[in-house]
Amino acid sequence: MNLRIPGPTPVPENVLKIMSKQMINHRGREFGQLLVDITDNLKTLFQTKNDIIIYTCSGTGGMEAAVVNTLSPKDKVLAVSIGVFGERFAQIAETYGADVTRLNFDYGTAADPDAVSKALEKDPQIKAVLLTHNETSTGVTNDLAALSAAVKKYDKLLLVDAISSLGCMDLQVDGWRCDVVVTGSQKGWMSPPGVAMLSFSPKAWEAIEQSKMPKFYFDAKKAKSYLEKNQTPWTPVISTFYALGVSLDMMVKEGLDSIFARHTKMAERTRAGIKSLGLTLFADPACASSTITSVKVPDDVDGVKLVKIMEDKYDTIIAGGQVDLTGKIFRVGHLGYVAEADIDKVIDALRLTLPQAKSTG
Amino acid sequence: MNLRIPGPTPVPENVLKIMSKQMINHRGREFGQLLVDITDNLKTLFQTKNDIIIYTCSGTGGMEAAVVNTLSPKDKVLAVSIGVFGERFAQIAETYGADVTRLNFDYGTAADPDAVSKALEKDPQIKAVLLTHNETSTGVTNDLAALSAAVKKYDKLLLVDAISSLGCMDLQVDGWRCDVVVTGSQKGWMSPPGVAMLSFSPKAWEAIEQSKMPKFYFDAKKAKSYLEKNQTPWTPVISTFYALGVSLDMMVKEGLDSIFARHTKMAERTRAGIKSLGLTLFADPACASSTITSVKVPDDVDGVKLVKIMEDKYDTIIAGGQVDLTGKIFRVGHLGYVAEADIDKVIDALRLTLPQAKSTG
Repeated sequence: MNLRIPGPTPVPENVLKIMSKQMINHRGREFGQLLVDITDNLKTLFQTKNDIIIYTCSGTGGMEAAVVNTLSPKDKVLAVSIGVFGERFAQIAETYGADVTRLNFDYGTAADPDAVSKALEKDPQIKAVLLTHNETSTGVTNDLAALSAAVKKYDKLLLVDAISSLGCMDLQVDGWRCDVVVTGSQKGWMSPPGVAMLSFSPKAWEAIEQSKMPKFYFDAKKAKSYLEKNQTPWTPVISTFYALGVSLDMMVKEGLDSIFARHTKMAERTRAGIKSLGLTLFADPACASSTITSVKVPDDVDGVKLVKIMEDKYDTIIAGGQVDLTGKIFRVGHLGYVAEADIDKVIDALRLTLPQAKSTG
Repeated sequence: MNLRIPGPTPVPENVLKIMSKQMINHRGREFGQLLVDITDNLKTLFQTKNDIIIYTCSGTGGMEAAVVNTLSPKDKVLAVSIGVFGERFAQIAETYGADVTRLNFDYGTAADPDAVSKALEKDPQIKAVLLTHNETSTGVTNDLAALSAAVKKYDKLLLVDAISSLGCMDLQVDGWRCDVVVTGSQKGWMSPPGVAMLSFSPKAWEAIEQSKMPKFYFDAKKAKSYLEKNQTPWTPVISTFYALGVSLDMMVKEGLDSIFARHTKMAERTRAGIKSLGLTLFADPACASSTITSVKVPDDVDGVKLVKIMEDKYDTIIAGGQVDLTGKIFRVGHLGYVAEADIDKVIDALRLTLPQAKSTG
């Protein structure tokens, strides 16, 4: 099977192997050391000195943890959205009573830092900005450095969904002054799902002290107090921690520059292959993601049928479009553990599938 | 290693083996079928026709899901507590703004159904009752059938923490009219941590329609809508689902009667062994748990040192006391995948450890 969705992503054999390790005491020394090692490696890969908190949940759970720990009901929040996951971040904040102003950009394009500046200029009451680094639903990467500069010019709290970017493309958590950054084990981290990983800056901890949104499972202060004794407050998903113990070591050994270059190369290979088939890329090339490529479904092709034939006949799992983009685009993931041959197989399978997926047929 | 804490519990070899299976699309047919199979098996093992919702989180996350989906801020709630986990359930409800009345019983004893009746008689405004089936911190099992009868005489919503009992001892979810029941994969289910499993009765779904506590990640209505297409709303911890696919099949094949009898036998063997060492059981024998045995630390023994020597010298991992019981009791888990030899090894190790763990030494 060629699993080419934007997560869960394929896991290397040596990482899969450790998943079969027997359970241990999550309050014992062996787990404590594993937690320390994972946290240290994550700091390197997040390019940060900030605290890292690890939750047993999906990426969406991690987004909720970012919101409920730092905000209070009625807080004014600017939600910058370029797709489904930007909208999800806004909805989480609204669910917990934040007063959310949306700044939406067309699907397939990136957020404009000037527009963010203007929105913050216009409403000085805004306390925090929600940003997506890489929008998984459209295959667009925002210019987080420029967006952060706009946010920090007004000294706002910056919460970043980097679920499908961190560990794959440059994200300088400290350099770009990101207060909370969220990612998930099943994306670029070459591990199975089950874990969300968040960094919290000193400014985030100040916000946490003021925060009045209710939280128990996701309580970052409690997590931090347990981290001081090398534990998690609640029983962690031990096997996914085993996996991260191996995969993060691999990543630190490879080094960030090599990881970033590898992802750029895979993205270029994917886009070149797509174009060679006469297909049109959905995302503006200026902001096309190095982890996910989105492709327009041609007018005479049934997008849902295309995804199904790719799986049934060619054992190649790609993703369709989500929500408003259902049937209009398809998406190819190339993050984490992926080789050139995996990309070439997708292109070959697409070449064979396209004539069989006509919308009239 | 003899892992004899009350969870994570040891996982059988064939279940560990499936944990190394490669990732699949969580929105594809293979995962959909796995979710259907797990849910069907859980209905058998929960003895229920109610809906089962599976979350990627710990048992505490499952307790939070039970509360936030069915209650509203200011709702009056009776929290019946016989230990640390009963108190945790109360704290979760308070965190989300419920008006919690506590009915606490001495640690080591069970809750009195008559006292529950009186509390409900006294305050007709109470909407829901929070109950612990098996209190992991003290090794006491409540008489849930009798407690439920008291709660249902007043037609209250009944939320049950059965994290360390379900799948080990008799719990008739439908027969005892339990509206929400919570358990976790790492307890009696012979699987690694990462998954909480909850049943919701028709009365629970009515409460869910009225509930105003905020929730996003734990939203049961959203989970139910995705379950209808054999999916979870957010990326699930696929590997733990693989494990449950195997372990629940084993459990259904074994049958509930055999599972319950096996746990009773292990508990009796543990208690007999403990007594043979001249030690005193902490829990009232009338309500001693069949999954966890709590033991008083003798006056001349250092309880913390005892747990440490058991691990360091005899590779036997038992649990100490929690919160107020730290150093005063120790606990032996005998739930899930456990054989007589595992129990005997604990007793042998204790026999050797006790003289070395004197509080003066």
